[in-house]
Amino acid sequence: MIGKEKKLAIYMEGNLDSIYAKMGYGVMRYSENPIVCVIDSDYSGKKVNEVIDQPFEIPIVASVGKAIEMGAEVMVLGLAPTGGKLPDTWVNDVEKALTLGMSLVNGLHDLLGERFAHLLNTDKPEQVIWDVRKPLTDYAIARARASALTNKRVLMVGTDMAVGKMTAGLEVYKWIREQGISSDFLATGQIGITVTGKGIPLDAIKVDQACGAVEHLVLEAQDKDIVFIEGQGSLLHPGSTATLPLMRGSCPTHLILCHRGEMSTLRDVTDIKIPPFNEVIKLNEAVAHACGSFPKAKTVGIAVNTSKLNESEALQVIEKIEKETGLPVTDVVRFGAEKIGRALL
Amino acid sequence: MIGKEKKLAIYMEGNLDSIYAKMGYGVMRYSENPIVCVIDSDYSGKKVNEVIDQPFEIPIVASVGKAIEMGAEVMVLGLAPTGGKLPDTWVNDVEKALTLGMSLVNGLHDLLGERFAHLLNTDKPEQVIWDVRKPLTDYAIARARASALTNKRVLMVGTDMAVGKMTAGLEVYKWIREQGISSDFLATGQIGITVTGKGIPLDAIKVDQACGAVEHLVLEAQDKDIVFIEGQGSLLHPGSTATLPLMRGSCPTHLILCHRGEMSTLRDVTDIKIPPFNEVIKLNEAVAHACGSFPKAKTVGIAVNTSKLNESEALQVIEKIEKETGLPVTDVVRFGAEKIGRALL
Repeated sequence: MIGKEKKLAIYMEGNLDSIYAKMGYGVMRYSENPIVCVIDSDYSGKKVNEVIDQPFEIPIVASVGKAIEMGAEVMVLGLAPTGGKLPDTWVNDVEKALTLGMSLVNGLHDLLGERFAHLLNTDKPEQVIWDVRKPLTDYAIARARASALTNKRVLMVGTDMAVGKMTAGLEVYKWIREQGISSDFLATGQIGITVTGKGIPLDAIKVDQACGAVEHLVLEAQDKDIVFIEGQGSLLHPGSTATLPLMRGSCPTHLILCHRGEMSTLRDVTDIKIPPFNEVIKLNEAVAHACGSFPKAKTVGIAVNTSKLNESEALQVIEKIEKETGLPVTDVVRFGAEKIGRALL
Repeated sequence: MIGKEKKLAIYMEGNLDSIYAKMGYGVMRYSENPIVCVIDSDYSGKKVNEVIDQPFEIPIVASVGKAIEMGAEVMVLGLAPTGGKLPDTWVNDVEKALTLGMSLVNGLHDLLGERFAHLLNTDKPEQVIWDVRKPLTDYAIARARASALTNKRVLMVGTDMAVGKMTAGLEVYKWIREQGISSDFLATGQIGITVTGKGIPLDAIKVDQACGAVEHLVLEAQDKDIVFIEGQGSLLHPGSTATLPLMRGSCPTHLILCHRGEMSTLRDVTDIKIPPFNEVIKLNEAVAHACGSFPKAKTVGIAVNTSKLNESEALQVIEKIEKETGLPVTDVVRFGAEKIGRALL
């Protein structure tokens, strides 16, 4: 974990405009830490919003040394490539950052804590290598302890993987917080963990301990009136297991269904069609409730990711789903989170 | 893995009558390997059925040396204690067995392969230490490949953990095989893996890979007309994740629901009542089908574990559930598996 006051540099050397840069973009969009710069020598001297279609006026510098001059205390690796390996071309800069006293935040599958431990300065106890994806502890077997809590527990679910559950959750969470409501966002994936400074890497946890890990997370935040639990996977995806431990560990009281506006099938398994929304909602609510064994979870809205559509297409899709389900539907990034947020008050 | 012709000794020193002996009993009941003896010096000279209430006429001997004299080639550790550690008092005999050339089968969480590797005879390549609970490989992300198969895939599900899903599955599988039908039992826990010589330790696999591991298992057995997939956990248990990857990986066509006759609540979480059977059946079928995304799985029968009831109580419970659900219901250990097996033909 990294204190909220620590100054970050996001390391994206050669990759600021890569399709694997979503870790970096997530940190730019949602981290509460000050971000002093992005490191990518291809674009040094410019600002991020001059290079890519993202609204961040963050200066880009050419080197680790320059980032430290600007006050950076923590280097965040901004890439999430398939396979999750540290690129060989990054090793020198990682070693340099550690030698010069920076902390390192690593969301790759490749764990770096042991590999580079010898570079940590022994007289600097606050310098750490944080492998975000490394499960921290053993968790107790879950016992539905969350069902005894009186707060609202909002679980993000999806029609597919990678439809924007984290982003939608963070946007609605931000809106709720702005209303002065005591609230928290509970991260379950590496980007969310990096952004919020805490959470659990659910995908990397053993089947046996998955529910217990989620329960632990939810109990830790029990003093908050509304908690948002970052979703993973989908009940409809043949490769996805995470929905069940998320539901059992958190005992959700509310669900927000997330969907990618242009999709009529799963992205990876295109012969699986997205079923009618009302059926998907019913299935998710049935699993959460489990024949009365757990709290009744009500679906309060549908967050549609319309980033691949123009504005008029986006509005059409939203209207169609709204008519079909009778629920508040919107793209919370494009049109704001109020419409869905209000349904939680 | 251990060849089916290898002769086994089951090591239960000081524990033949322990509550943690279910690993040993499972091997005695279901292993296809010849079992030459049980090792427990407390009862040497007797047979197993003279010591405990289990129908096995297996001789008990006092030492590893004696087992080897009788032809034993493989020593199976017969204990599954809470925590899964190797008892200190067993270390000497494990070392002795390995030094004298026996293979070792270990179902404990404690992995022994590395710890004792130096004792393996380098000129004896068939001598192995098999840590049954160690996940073997990385698995591909599941893509519902099993849904394209034309065989019957029977998944065991439960109203709770530890209700006898493995035993019921093995009994129905045995009956089906006796009818001359090409069939297989796919193990997903340490006892089933030991007994059948293959399978996946689902609880120890990462959430990310769980569906893929099950899919791998089911695809390997695709030439069989009926496959039984050993169940784990329960959709109703707050600490259980395994039902979802089992359903997604296997795309079951049939379900057998397992229940412990005397229970009206979960065993570990007693404030969760077992819901009406028809609702449990509906929920399991709904999750398996996922709004039409996967094959429709039909529940063909209910296997009730009545080991805690006398025969008249057992028959009463069975009749009651049969009336409630209209399905074939029986205790497959006590009354035979034919009643449920026939429903699969």
